[in-house]
Amino acid sequence: MGILVVGSVALDTVKTPFGQVEEALGGSATYFSTSASYFTDVKVVAVVGEDFPETHIKFLKTRNVDLKGLMRSPGKTFRWSGFYDYDLNRAHTLKTELNVFESFDPLLPDEYAGSDIVFLANIDPVLQRKVLGQVKSPRLVAADTMNYWIENRKDELLETLKLVDILTINESEARELSGEPNLVKAARKILSFGPRTLVVKRGEYGVLMFNDGRFFSAPAFPLESVFDPTGAGDTFAGGFMGYLASVMDWSDPNLRKALVMGSVMASFAVQDFSLGGIRGLDYKEIEGRFKGLRGVAHFEDL
Amino acid sequence: MGILVVGSVALDTVKTPFGQVEEALGGSATYFSTSASYFTDVKVVAVVGEDFPETHIKFLKTRNVDLKGLMRSPGKTFRWSGFYDYDLNRAHTLKTELNVFESFDPLLPDEYAGSDIVFLANIDPVLQRKVLGQVKSPRLVAADTMNYWIENRKDELLETLKLVDILTINESEARELSGEPNLVKAARKILSFGPRTLVVKRGEYGVLMFNDGRFFSAPAFPLESVFDPTGAGDTFAGGFMGYLASVMDWSDPNLRKALVMGSVMASFAVQDFSLGGIRGLDYKEIEGRFKGLRGVAHFEDL
Repeated sequence: MGILVVGSVALDTVKTPFGQVEEALGGSATYFSTSASYFTDVKVVAVVGEDFPETHIKFLKTRNVDLKGLMRSPGKTFRWSGFYDYDLNRAHTLKTELNVFESFDPLLPDEYAGSDIVFLANIDPVLQRKVLGQVKSPRLVAADTMNYWIENRKDELLETLKLVDILTINESEARELSGEPNLVKAARKILSFGPRTLVVKRGEYGVLMFNDGRFFSAPAFPLESVFDPTGAGDTFAGGFMGYLASVMDWSDPNLRKALVMGSVMASFAVQDFSLGGIRGLDYKEIEGRFKGLRGVAHFEDL
Repeated sequence: MGILVVGSVALDTVKTPFGQVEEALGGSATYFSTSASYFTDVKVVAVVGEDFPETHIKFLKTRNVDLKGLMRSPGKTFRWSGFYDYDLNRAHTLKTELNVFESFDPLLPDEYAGSDIVFLANIDPVLQRKVLGQVKSPRLVAADTMNYWIENRKDELLETLKLVDILTINESEARELSGEPNLVKAARKILSFGPRTLVVKRGEYGVLMFNDGRFFSAPAFPLESVFDPTGAGDTFAGGFMGYLASVMDWSDPNLRKALVMGSVMASFAVQDFSLGGIRGLDYKEIEGRFKGLRGVAHFEDL
C-alpha cells in the first residue's frame, strides 16, 4: 500500500500581495507527501543539501512520511524564488538554484521497489523514468510536468508518458504539449501519447478530468483569502493520489471523488505560505470542505 | 407570464480563427430572446433602422418573439464589428456604430406594462431604469452590464442596481465594479449594492452564482469546436431567465437548474456564427445537453 513520490524538496522564497517568506519549506515532493499523508503512507525519493534544516525533517516525520529515500548530498539544497501579483494564477520566477538537484541520481531503497502507486512529480522526464524503472510492478503511475520539459525535453517527456496512467498538467501546458488551443482536442491528443486519464489543473477555476471518454469538472473551493498559491498543484496531486491509494480502486466514480479531494487539499494549501495551510489539519475539516464542494457543484435533474 | 427584455438588435461583422460573417443578425436582445423563446414567451423592447432586413424580423417571429416593442427609426441599424483570436474568451472591438441606438428612447407598448419578469440587457443604465419604470410591478428583475458603463456611468449604474434582483456580469467586470481582485469579496460587495443574486460569467470556465450565502459553480459544456463566442453571455441569460419564467419559482435549486440551462444554451450558441447555433433547436437536444452537464459536474459523497 501507500505511494512512492519522486520530486523536489526545496527552500522557497516567495512574495505575494499578502506577504512573503524566505527560505521556507517547499518543493513538489514536500507538498505532495504532506497532502497525501492524510490518506495513506508516503515514501519520498528526493535530495537535499547539507544546509537543509533538521526542523523540516522533523515536521515530515510527524506526518509519518517515509524519508529513507531522501538523500542528503554535499552542497546546498534546491532553492526557488518567485513572486505573484494579484493574478494569483501565474507564478513569476525570479531565480532557480538547482544546487544538489543538478546531479540528482535517484537510487531507491530496496524496500521501495514493491510500491503499488507511483507519483512522478515535475522533474526531468529522464529521472522520472529512472525512478519508475526501479519499481517492480506498479499498479498505478501518475506524473506531472511543466512547460520547461515540454519546451526542452519533449522527446524524453513523450517516452515517459508512454508509461504513465494519469497525467496531471496545467491548462496552458496541456495546450503547449498538444499544440491544440481547444482543450477537448488537446486532451484527446495527449491521451494518444499514453495516459488513459488526463487531469487539467485550472487554478481558481478548478480541475477538468478526461477519463474513459467522459469529462468531469470540479470547481475550486471558493475562498475569500488566497495568500500563496505555491505548491497548490502538488498538494492537489497529493490529495488526489492519496485518496486513490486509500481506496485502491480507480473507477470513474472514485477518480471523481479523488479529484475533489485534491481540490479540497489545494484549497487549504493556498490559505497560508509554505506548508502552513496543510501542516496540521483535522480529517473532519477535510471532510467538511469535501461536502462543501458538493454543495457548490450539485444541482437537481430536470 | 413571459419575459420582457430591453437591449440591442444589431448587425454584427465578426471574424474568428474559424471564419467570418458580415452584417449578420446580432445584438443582446436578439440572442436573449431567441434563447429564452425555447422556454417562455418573450417581449422585445429595442430599436432598428430602416435598413434592418425583413428576413431577421421573420426569423424572430418564427420563434414567437413578440416584436410590438421593436421600434423602427429613421437611420441605420446599430452595428458592431470585432474579432477574436485563439483566446476566444476575449472580444476585440474594431468599430461600434450606435446609429439609431444613439437616440433610443424606449416607450413600452401598454400591454408590456404588466410583465412579471424583466431582463435589462447591457445598455445605458439610465435607459435600463427608464424601461423598468414603465413596468407596473415586476416580480423578478435581472440585469447585465459591461465595463463601459462601469467606467463611464458608475453612479447611474449603481442607481439601477438598487432595483435589480439578479445581476449577470463577466468575471473581469465583477472585479472592476467592486474594486476587489478576490471574487468572493467582489461578490459580497456587489450584493451590497442591491442585487440579492450575482451570476459571474467566466466564459469557458462556466458560471459562478452567489445566492443567499451559497455558492454554485456550473461548468461550461466541454466543446471540441467553438466558432464564435459572440452573444454567448446573452444566450446564457436567455436560457437562465427563460427557465425561471417557465417554473415561476426562484428558490436556490431552481436558480441552479436555470443557470445550467443558461450554460446549455450558450454552448449551442458558440458552435456557429450569429444565431446559427440556436435558430432551430429541438427541446430534446437541450435536455440531452443538460443531462450531459450533470454528468460533467456530479460526484458521489464520501
